[in-house]
Amino acid sequence: MYGYHDHKDELLKRLRRAEGQVRGIAQMVDDDRYCIDILTQISATTKALQAVAVELLGDHLSHCVADAIEAGGPGAHAKIAEATDAVARLVRS
Amino acid sequence: MYGYHDHKDELLKRLRRAEGQVRGIAQMVDDDRYCIDILTQISATTKALQAVAVELLGDHLSHCVADAIEAGGPGAHAKIAEATDAVARLVRS
Amino acid sequence: MYGYHDHKDELLKRLRRAEGQVRGIAQMVDDDRYCIDILTQISATTKALQAVAVELLGDHLSHCVADAIEAGGPGAHAKIAEATDAVARLVRS
Amino acid sequence: MYGYHDHKDELLKRLRRAEGQVRGIAQMVDDDRYCIDILTQISATTKALQAVAVELLGDHLSHCVADAIEAGGPGAHAKIAEATDAVARLVRS
Repeated sequence: MYGYHDHKDELLKRLRRAEGQVRGIAQMVDDDRYCIDILTQISATTKALQAVAVELLGDHLSHCVADAIEAGGPGAHAKIAEATDAVARLVRS
Repeated sequence: MYGYHDHKDELLKRLRRAEGQVRGIAQMVDDDRYCIDILTQISATTKALQAVAVELLGDHLSHCVADAIEAGGPGAHAKIAEATDAVARLVRS
Repeated sequence: MYGYHDHKDELLKRLRRAEGQVRGIAQMVDDDRYCIDILTQISATTKALQAVAVELLGDHLSHCVADAIEAGGPGAHAKIAEATDAVARLVRS
Repeated sequence: MYGYHDHKDELLKRLRRAEGQVRGIAQMVDDDRYCIDILTQISATTKALQAVAVELLGDHLSHCVADAIEAGGPGAHAKIAEATDAVARLVRS
């Protein structure tokens, strides 16, 4: 079980909402809505997705990474490097 | 008709794909998939949405903003300020 | 003269401040300051630089791009594409 | 001593370079250089600063956070929450 297991329901609710936001953006395009209003919705959706990512990262540090550190050995180093790479991708996206 | 009208189909295709990506992320959470793999998918999805936003902004400049500039008057200034604010939101998101 | 000419002094003041912020970050590293405090300063500095970038972009649209649109012809299209590419780089950085 | 202690020289070198980049951007403004070229330099500088931030975060996880986890107790939780908040600020900046 991964770190986010305890609040899976809340994460799923936020992801369903983000999915609805993207569907709403497609609908706005289909309805010929004003460009700037569509851009505003895209900004809101990427923000919502990034907030989910930051929460997942916190869970990951609290569980998977913490467990690897407690277990010690090279596994801990690998987990920290992997999490840092994930942060690098989030910062660039 | 707004600036993106001529490639509405392509935009809709990309937005449907982004919607599928978000649905896929929810499925990954539901299936207890590894946190880092979920983060990678979120980064890919926000990148895809931001690429759509940049394309919409280019269309907006080429049409709505260009038309306002050609028409002249205070409307041109307002359109440019509005587009600049949209860029500020994109950069922060 | 470029679009930002009229508020060059204000831009220079903000850039001098950002330069001082980066120098301050180097000093924090040299003084063995706490990692998280250094990260907070880096976030503040990139935000300040991006705000300068958004302002420069607004100036650019109001002057260089607007002039090209008023002049008409292929130059307008090229200027808009160039500005859109600059936004894409800002969004990714 | 903090996590970044072992490669302080390399971090300082990168921060000095970023400081020079910001000084160069101010010089470009002072010299009335083309807006888009200035924007390109700002994007490069914020990318460089964010790369330093991600490296510092990796060091922080490997040392301060790992030490707190090994020590156990509520300190570990607090360190992870603090690092996650720092990531949230980086992602937004």
